[in-house]
Amino acid sequence: MDKLSVVKIGGNVIEDAEQLAGFLTGFTQMEGAKVLVHGGGKKATLMAEKLGVPVKMIDGRRITDAENLDIITMLYGGKINKNIVAQLQGKNCNAIGLSGADGNAIQAVKRPVKEIDFGFVGDVTGINAPLFQLLLKAYYVPVCCAITHDQNGQLLNTNADTIAASVAKGLSKFFKVSLCYCFEMPGVLKDTDDKGSVIEEITPNSYTKLKTNNVIHSGMIPKIDNCFEALKNGVSEVKIGGPQMISGKTKYTKIILDDE
Amino acid sequence: MDKLSVVKIGGNVIEDAEQLAGFLTGFTQMEGAKVLVHGGGKKATLMAEKLGVPVKMIDGRRITDAENLDIITMLYGGKINKNIVAQLQGKNCNAIGLSGADGNAIQAVKRPVKEIDFGFVGDVTGINAPLFQLLLKAYYVPVCCAITHDQNGQLLNTNADTIAASVAKGLSKFFKVSLCYCFEMPGVLKDTDDKGSVIEEITPNSYTKLKTNNVIHSGMIPKIDNCFEALKNGVSEVKIGGPQMISGKTKYTKIILDDE
Repeated sequence: MDKLSVVKIGGNVIEDAEQLAGFLTGFTQMEGAKVLVHGGGKKATLMAEKLGVPVKMIDGRRITDAENLDIITMLYGGKINKNIVAQLQGKNCNAIGLSGADGNAIQAVKRPVKEIDFGFVGDVTGINAPLFQLLLKAYYVPVCCAITHDQNGQLLNTNADTIAASVAKGLSKFFKVSLCYCFEMPGVLKDTDDKGSVIEEITPNSYTKLKTNNVIHSGMIPKIDNCFEALKNGVSEVKIGGPQMISGKTKYTKIILDDE
Repeated sequence: MDKLSVVKIGGNVIEDAEQLAGFLTGFTQMEGAKVLVHGGGKKATLMAEKLGVPVKMIDGRRITDAENLDIITMLYGGKINKNIVAQLQGKNCNAIGLSGADGNAIQAVKRPVKEIDFGFVGDVTGINAPLFQLLLKAYYVPVCCAITHDQNGQLLNTNADTIAASVAKGLSKFFKVSLCYCFEMPGVLKDTDDKGSVIEEITPNSYTKLKTNNVIHSGMIPKIDNCFEALKNGVSEVKIGGPQMISGKTKYTKIILDDE
């Protein structure tokens, strides 16, 4: 079975042009089939401010109305995606940008309204594995932005971590998949003030303890839940680390299923 | 040889949501392999105004500086392209959006500075025919926006008519290509005030006369020059007409090489 790396970069890596260029050089040098998934960072909020579009929040959670979806589509699907693709092409990496609508790459449903109506937010229901296979076998490198569609004409704002996990899971029948989450920290830290305190392995048992001791909390919990779920669904390897992780030269956090 | 339709829609068709939806339904119903190329219309100018970005003109010609290129990338590559793709997907047409950077689809050079420095404007140098063939053979429908790249990391603003002609010419070795330019008029008109006055055929001889008599002038001249050049480079058929032309139910202007 061929190897496939699915690499997700977060918003903070994208914000900094120099850091992004460095990451993209490292990504270009990764051997074998690969997919890049990118978030959008704070640029959508800044653009909404510039355009005078109010950013709606309910209970601290962002609501995607039609105007904010337009901004996300312009930035994530347009400016950020196309510039990453062009930069990768400039580094001899045959990147091809995809939103979830392109070639029906990533399907979703509009999140059902319960306590909160999140607006045009998508929950992923599946991926078009044959499209990814077609492109990967021809040595193209899909670059996915955090937008999906409902197959009925509607684009949907979707969490980039979830997109990366969905692509990794959906292709695990055809490839030995390594899923890498790159963010601004060198890994999951024992002490957030000490970048040297990277936890090198997290197992289900140690995860429970880390949550009990409040070492892992808030936004990191859904991230790690996503990782375990990917491993349970056929993904071979899940790593969390800094952008240099993909070069294999730095420490990172490995999420593993077995408590040995 | 299989047939391929390369259809270009202009900005004015895109501006009107209802007209666009009608066009996309007609496009979905076209049989055989097809490629859609779209312009951007006035939306870039409106967005530049909203964002307070000055639109620079020299001798009545628009200059694409870095800020305006960003706006074009957001709108043409993001909002317009992704919404057209999503709408086509909703009509069971397996559309896949491409800028020229995606999969190195359309290569260009930054226009050399002579009297005017046009900024980040691209002159097309070639297309990645194997990418289009790969997608078309797998029944995907490429949807190209008017953006190319220099293969060195730089996106470039490029005329959509030229992109359509380049794709048509570049694929004419592999397909019997019909190139259709859809715009707001039902064809090239004898009298611009009379939509019934469609000139049904233009040959090199009649073109010379129409220019001499000032029936064809200004912006229509490079458009028709493009058409003849496409025919001389292997394209089988070139048509100019309204968005309903693709359904074959309306008159249109056919550009033909032979003066019989």
